[in-house]
This record gives sequence, structure tokens and C-alpha cells, in this order.
Amino acid sequence: MGSFKGHALPGSFFLVAGIWWTGKYSLWHATRRNKNIGSTRLSSRASQRRLEIIESSVILFFSFVGILAEQFLADGPKLQLYNFTDKHWQDLMNWQHSTMYLFFGLAGAVSLIIHTTEAAPLALDRLMLAIAFFNEGFLFLYHLHGRSMLDVHVHQLLLFAIFGEALVAFLEVFHRGNIILELLRCTLTILQGSWFWEIGFVLYPPRGPEWDLKDHNNMMFVTMCYSWHLAFAMLVVSVLYCTVSWLKRTPPMEMGLLKTRERDPESEDEIL
Amino acid sequence: MGSFKGHALPGSFFLVAGIWWTGKYSLWHATRRNKNIGSTRLSSRASQRRLEIIESSVILFFSFVGILAEQFLADGPKLQLYNFTDKHWQDLMNWQHSTMYLFFGLAGAVSLIIHTTEAAPLALDRLMLAIAFFNEGFLFLYHLHGRSMLDVHVHQLLLFAIFGEALVAFLEVFHRGNIILELLRCTLTILQGSWFWEIGFVLYPPRGPEWDLKDHNNMMFVTMCYSWHLAFAMLVVSVLYCTVSWLKRTPPMEMGLLKTRERDPESEDEIL
Amino acid sequence: MGSFKGHALPGSFFLVAGIWWTGKYSLWHATRRNKNIGSTRLSSRASQRRLEIIESSVILFFSFVGILAEQFLADGPKLQLYNFTDKHWQDLMNWQHSTMYLFFGLAGAVSLIIHTTEAAPLALDRLMLAIAFFNEGFLFLYHLHGRSMLDVHVHQLLLFAIFGEALVAFLEVFHRGNIILELLRCTLTILQGSWFWEIGFVLYPPRGPEWDLKDHNNMMFVTMCYSWHLAFAMLVVSVLYCTVSWLKRTPPMEMGLLKTRERDPESEDEIL
Amino acid sequence: MGSFKGHALPGSFFLVAGIWWTGKYSLWHATRRNKNIGSTRLSSRASQRRLEIIESSVILFFSFVGILAEQFLADGPKLQLYNFTDKHWQDLMNWQHSTMYLFFGLAGAVSLIIHTTEAAPLALDRLMLAIAFFNEGFLFLYHLHGRSMLDVHVHQLLLFAIFGEALVAFLEVFHRGNIILELLRCTLTILQGSWFWEIGFVLYPPRGPEWDLKDHNNMMFVTMCYSWHLAFAMLVVSVLYCTVSWLKRTPPMEMGLLKTRERDPESEDEIL
Repeated sequence: MGSFKGHALPGSFFLVAGIWWTGKYSLWHATRRNKNIGSTRLSSRASQRRLEIIESSVILFFSFVGILAEQFLADGPKLQLYNFTDKHWQDLMNWQHSTMYLFFGLAGAVSLIIHTTEAAPLALDRLMLAIAFFNEGFLFLYHLHGRSMLDVHVHQLLLFAIFGEALVAFLEVFHRGNIILELLRCTLTILQGSWFWEIGFVLYPPRGPEWDLKDHNNMMFVTMCYSWHLAFAMLVVSVLYCTVSWLKRTPPMEMGLLKTRERDPESEDEIL
Repeated sequence: MGSFKGHALPGSFFLVAGIWWTGKYSLWHATRRNKNIGSTRLSSRASQRRLEIIESSVILFFSFVGILAEQFLADGPKLQLYNFTDKHWQDLMNWQHSTMYLFFGLAGAVSLIIHTTEAAPLALDRLMLAIAFFNEGFLFLYHLHGRSMLDVHVHQLLLFAIFGEALVAFLEVFHRGNIILELLRCTLTILQGSWFWEIGFVLYPPRGPEWDLKDHNNMMFVTMCYSWHLAFAMLVVSVLYCTVSWLKRTPPMEMGLLKTRERDPESEDEIL
Repeated sequence: MGSFKGHALPGSFFLVAGIWWTGKYSLWHATRRNKNIGSTRLSSRASQRRLEIIESSVILFFSFVGILAEQFLADGPKLQLYNFTDKHWQDLMNWQHSTMYLFFGLAGAVSLIIHTTEAAPLALDRLMLAIAFFNEGFLFLYHLHGRSMLDVHVHQLLLFAIFGEALVAFLEVFHRGNIILELLRCTLTILQGSWFWEIGFVLYPPRGPEWDLKDHNNMMFVTMCYSWHLAFAMLVVSVLYCTVSWLKRTPPMEMGLLKTRERDPESEDEIL
Repeated sequence: MGSFKGHALPGSFFLVAGIWWTGKYSLWHATRRNKNIGSTRLSSRASQRRLEIIESSVILFFSFVGILAEQFLADGPKLQLYNFTDKHWQDLMNWQHSTMYLFFGLAGAVSLIIHTTEAAPLALDRLMLAIAFFNEGFLFLYHLHGRSMLDVHVHQLLLFAIFGEALVAFLEVFHRGNIILELLRCTLTILQGSWFWEIGFVLYPPRGPEWDLKDHNNMMFVTMCYSWHLAFAMLVVSVLYCTVSWLKRTPPMEMGLLKTRERDPESEDEIL
């Protein structure tokens, strides 16, 4: 996938996922805060479940498409793992990307089962997500042998977002519905998405001069740039969260705001 | 133990242990969910304890057999630690493996004492398990000096599963009976077991050509292969869990499924 | 910023912040302990909020001033990122420092919004603080390429305090108001502040001979010196805490001290 | 302190501390379990406090003696830090050891204040202990430059026990009175103590031949030996715990053991 498109595509997916999740969790958090003013809880719970089912199906679908694309497009290995004539592994990169998609697909499938049937405990969807991200980071970790300095560096920076997300998703197993963790995960997803785009621009500049991949100053600039992407991701999440909160805000006739706020439940557990 | 058998044997043990644990915890979780429909709790608790006692005895027995085998079979050191005539340590590998078995034996012994007497706090069995796995990983960590690249790499990959399991078992000290953590531990045990088999096939191929232990492509393939083993382990655990849940499912005349599910206890603590 | 002043200035800020926080949290903890003797809770809560608003504004203001100073003073880049005539990045150091200030500014801004409006969950201010410190450490981590041994070492030691603080602030998301964590964060802030001064003295001694930056004994001394700074920070926090506690102590006519003490709430949660 | 005695002395202290702590926590745990049979809680609490005060005083005293010994015995620096005539730091090793003692002394002092007055929150004693152990490990970490392989290795192994203990003590801030964590800390203390003795025997064999400090087999043996020390420490703690439990066991006329056991409080919090 060593191309601009090859980085822009997953980047776009993560950007969309991050923005979608931000909207979803902001909406649910706003709903939870308003729960004592009329909105019947049961209905909201049913619609939440419906939303989760749709989301899981979409993830499952795109993972499947991703695997197919990696295998059968252009110079894919077409499910052939070992080239016996030339005695070497066939298109290992494509196989690795397929494996990454496989784990996100598994996470989607499990989430689908959890939210359609009674078979499995609820927190399993977060564990599967944590494993999917961990697996992505794990494969990237051993992916970088023998590349030039800046190439290695931009991919290593990506690992902060990926392993960070795996950790946050794992913490959510124990603190499900904690809005802080959810928004942090959204932020890291958007960071990952925009950084994939950045990697594309740095390694395969669509126009303009090539970057010097061995210049230490470039490395320092790229590191700082990563911080800016994080700030940008935080900004996007904040704006989205505030917009959703404002749209679903409690009517002004309600009183005792101060008291309500102090007891504002940050975790689903407190309500369930 | 540098042989195919020497890796297949522990691999088989971990596979059996992983499958056994998956069945056990799935069954108990299903029992907990059904508890309000007639199954008397006291009886189930007594049978749980009986099961734990049997399991601990089996672990203790096989650890003891393992130590004896390492010491007295074929070219074992026969409890001789230092060779004074040649001035070198006698069969350090066998001694290291004996030490690993010793810690699993200790974990079994402590678990046996905990479940037969009132002497020690319950959570100690998980701590002992965590220590046993940590010790296994610790010894592997300093085990790999001077081997070839791929040999080191396949053993390092094993460490992810081993230290992961140690961590999960340690978390279980505080979250005892959390089905998510239990299933994660089962998955990592099966991963460890199947990976031991894989190591055997890679380093000592029973038939077919030898692997090139210095080829970087082999290393990348092996890394990806580890992900597939993880996916396979997750599949095994899922199928087992669903089968057990389906066999012990709540009778269909029960109503109010939705409500029950929302309050589905994920931890033993909530019931005790 | 490679100068004595350039290290003394941030050092002073952290020292002031650490001392301020120690006083604030000590006062609030003392107030919580005394709550059952007349001090009306509502009023204290309102004044707490006012204090938070002032503090956030000050942080926001100084971050803004810091960015402006880095950009426009003396040899700053004046918001120019790339020097197209000489084809190199313009003053990367100043840009990196600006980025650090930016994140502290963001933390201040979010904290301001949290404490003036109802928009966001309370725990977000600690998360933003954790991110700001993490970002500071992250930039320092890739900041040290090609410097001499002692220069790298004194900055690496700084990372213990910075990442430690990020971790403690993150833990506070889940254990808000835990006085132990709060005082630990204060200690690490003061440690960071005084160590910035130490770095200034070691690398740019204002008078006296230069240090030999390659002598291993100097490195060992500096390591030990870091411990002393930690001890000093602990001392400052202890003295401040005891002074505040003594000033706000419970009147002596109260009885049943032993019982009160055993139930001394260490976390805000227990009261809210 | 490069001598056999220099390692045996701290080793003995840690051994005594570990055994003492095991006895103390076993006794308190047994007392908590028996609390419903007559033993009045208030009296036990007062005697616990008295015990803590004595313990803190002893730690404080020996830390002070340790600092004095390091400074003024034989070839100590006698509080002189820099040798201006020869232009080098004076006896850095002794200063480092003094610094380690200083932090244990601080932990003792703070614990003394906590248990004699009402000034500070209870959990602070564990935090101070965690900091003292962390500081010990931190100084050891930068202590090993330029030594031979085995020398570095035996000290690195020590770090597992030291940082492990720091982590456990930090966890105790949040899970105070958890018998599992307390016994784990005791085990690691004894491990540390016996390993100090082992280091003495390996690096400065009092009789018999010197060890070859560059032989890789020695390194592998020493690693395994560390596991044995851990097993030994676990054995000592178990025997002590069982003995104390047996001495303070509940009288046999009590009934309903099964039920009591299931609810056996593992944490002080549940009782307080």
C-alpha cells in the first residue's frame, strides 16, 4: 500500500469513525443528563441498541470489503500466501493489512451478536475493540524494518494513538459509559485518521518537492506536527460535543442547575 | 528441550488448560445468570469448590511429573546442579524448565489449600497464577541470548501472551469473577498453547525444508501468523462459550429478558 | 531557549503553580474535614468555583503571553514556519515551546468553560491537564537528539516528573478529590520547577566554571541531586499542608477525634 | 560499599522488615476475621496504632544510623560533597546510599506523624513507602555504568523486586488493608533481602573461587536463582501467615463457617 491513496483511505475511515462516535456518545450523554425530564428511558435504550446494530454492521461490511480489496485489487496476492515458484511469501504487506481488517471485522461481528442476542456480556464489544487496535499496533510495530528514518518515525508516532486507543478501550471494559474515556477514544481515532493523511503527504507528496527523509529537522517538525494534529482532534471533538449538547440542552425552565450538575453522572453504571 | 516434542508437549498442556477454563467459566457464568430460576445457589457453590479442588490437584500432579521428567529423563541433570569435574552448570535449560513447573506447582498447591481449608483469602489463587506466568515470562526473557533472529523473535512473541496473562490474572485479584477477564485469560492460554506448537513447526520442522532463520520476510510472516493464532484462540473461546451458554440457557417461558440483561452481573462480587 | 533565563522562567512558573495548588488543595481538604462544624457547604462550593475560574484565567493568560513571547521576542520566528529562501524550518525550538504553551492554554480554556458553564463533565479538566503534561513530555522526548551526555541526562530526568504528573492527573479523572493524588501532583510540579532551575545552573552556569558534560561522575551526582530535589519538594508540600491544616484546624471543643479520623474522607466522591 | 558486608547488612534489614510485616499483617487479618467473636474493635485499633508508632520510630532510627554510618565510618565523605583540591565529587556511592536511607527515614517520619497526630490522611504512609522504594530503584538504575556484565545483571534483577514493591505500595494507597497486596509486598521485601545476600556471595565470595563475571552461563544460572529466591520468600510468608492464622484461629464452636468465609473481607475498607 505504499502510496498516497493507501494512507488517505484508512485515514478517511478513521476520521469518519471518530466523528461518528463523537456525535453518538455526545448525544447519549446529553440524553442521560436530561433523563429526568420526560424522555422515557426505555425507548432511548431501544434506539441506542438499534444504532449499535447498524454501526456494527457497517464496520463488519467495510472490514470485509477492505479484505477483498487488499486481496484481489491490482497487485494483491489473491489469497495465495506462498509463492512456490519463486520461493518467497506473496505480498506480505497486503496480507498484514488484511489481518488488521480481519480483527476490526471480528470486533464488528461480536458487537453485532452482543446487541442482537443475549448471548454475551455487554462489555465484550469494548474488549474486542481494544484487541483490534492492539493488533493493529502490534503489526505496525514489526512493520518498519529497514525503512528510512523519517518513514519509521511517522509510523512510530502513529503507535501512540493506536496503543493509546487500545488502552482506553480496555479501560472502558471496567468504566463503561464514562464520557471522558469515550471522548478520549474519539479524539485518538480522529488523530489517527488525520495522521494517516499526514503520512501520505509526507512520504508521497502528491505535488511539490520530496521530503528529505534523513534530515533531523524534518523529524523534529513532524513530531511537533503530531501535537498539532492532537490539538486539532481535540478541537473537532469539543465543537461536536458542544453542538450536540446545545441542541439537546435541558429546557431553561428547569431549576436547581447547580445541584444537578454536582451529581451529573459520568458513568452509565450509576444509572443502570 | 530444543526439539519439536519439547515445544509440542507444553503447547498441548496449555491448549487443554485453556479449553478447560473456557468451559468452566462459561458454565459458571451461565449458572450465575440463571440463579433466580430455581437452581439453588448453595449446591452450585459446593460443586464449584469440588471442581476447583480437582483442577488444583491435576495442576499440582502434572507440575510434579514435569519436574521429574525434566530431571531424570534421557539427558536430564538428575538433580545435579553443578558439574565439578568439567566446571560448568549442569543442563541449565532443564533446570529452568523445572523452575517454571515449580511455580505452576506452587500455584496449584496454594489453590488446593485455599479451596480445601479456610486458611487463606480466596483471591490468592489468582495472585499465585499471575506470579507463575510472570515467572515463566521472566525466565524466557533471559533465555534467548545468542540465538538466531527468528528463534529469538518467535519466543519474544510468546512473551506477549505470557505477560498478558500474568497481567490479566493480577487484575482478577481485584475483579474476581469478571467473565470478560476470565475469557481473555482463556484466550491467551490457548494462544500460548497453539503458539508453542507453531514454534515447534518453525524451528524443528518435522518434515519439509528448514526455515531460513535470518530472512526478514519470514519474521514478518511469523508476526502476522501470531495474529492469526490469536484470532483462532478467540474463535475457539467464542464457540465454546456460546455452546455452553446455549446448553444452560434460561427456559423460554421467562419474561422480561431486556431488563434482566441490562442488569446482567459481570462480576461475582455483585452477587456475593 | 538555550540559556539560563530560558530554564529559570518556566521553572519559576511551575514552582508558583505547585505552591499555589498545594495551598488550594490543602485548604479544600481542611474545609471538607470541618464540614460538619457549621461551615455551610454551599457557600464553600461557590467560592471554590470562583477560585477555579480565576486560576484557569491566569493559566490561559500566561500561556498566551508565553506563545507571543516565543514568537515575537528577539530571535523568534514571528509566526513564520518555513524559511523558503534558506530552505529550512524556522526556529523549531521556539515553535516547540509555543506548542507546549498551547496545550496548557487549551487546558486552561477548557477548565474555564467547565467551571463557568454546564457544558462539560467536571473530570475533563484533569484529563486536559494530563494531556498537556503528556504533550510536554512527548515533545521533550524527541527534543534531545545529538546533545551531549549530561545535557540529555538532565532533560531525561525531567521526564520522570512530567510523565509522572500526566499519570497522576489521569488517575484523578477516576479518583477526583483524592488528597493523596493531589498532593503528589503538587510535589511533582514543584520538583519540575526546581529541576528547571537546576538545569539552568548545570548547563549555563551564571558564574563559576563550566561543567564537564561528558564526565560520568557528574551524571551520577546529578541523578542523586534529582532525589534531593524530590525530597525538597516533598518538604515544601508538607510544610504548606501542615500550616494550612493548622490554620483551619477544628476547634478543640470537638470530641470523638478518634472516630472522626478513622472515617476521614479521602475523596470528594464520598461526600458528593 | 563494594564488599560482602555492604550487601549483607541491607539484606538483613530487608529480611527482618519482611518477616516483621508478614507477622503484623497476618495478625491484623486474623483479628479482622475474628472480629465478630468478642474481641472489641476499639482496643485492637488502639494497639494497632501503637504498633505502627513503634515501627515508624524504628525505621526512622535505623535510617538515621544508616546515614551517619555511610558518612562517618571508615572512608566516608564526612558530609563533604565536593573535593575542591582534587576537583572531583567525594565518595558518590556513600552519598547515594545516604540518599536512599534519607527517603526511608522520611517515610518513617511521615508515618510517625500520621499515627501520632491527626494532621495527615492515613494513606500517605503507603505513598511515602512507594516513593522510598521508587527512589531506591531510581538510584540503582543509574548506578551500574561501566560494571561487568554479571554485576550489572544481579543488580538489575534486584530492580524487579524494588519497582514491584513501589508499585504494590502505590496500589495500597487505593486498596488499603488488602491482605493480598500486603502479603505480596512482604514477599518482595524478603526477596529483596535474600537477594542482597546473594549479590554479596556472588560478587564478593567470602571463601572459594571468584565467579567469572563474563560467563553467560553464570548469568542464566543467576536468573534462575532469582526465581528460587522468590519461591523461598513465598514459602516463608506462607508459613508465617499460616502459623499466625492457626494461633489466632476462631474457636471451633463457631458455626456457619462456609457462609462466613464467602464474605471474608479482604479489605479494611469494608469494615471501616
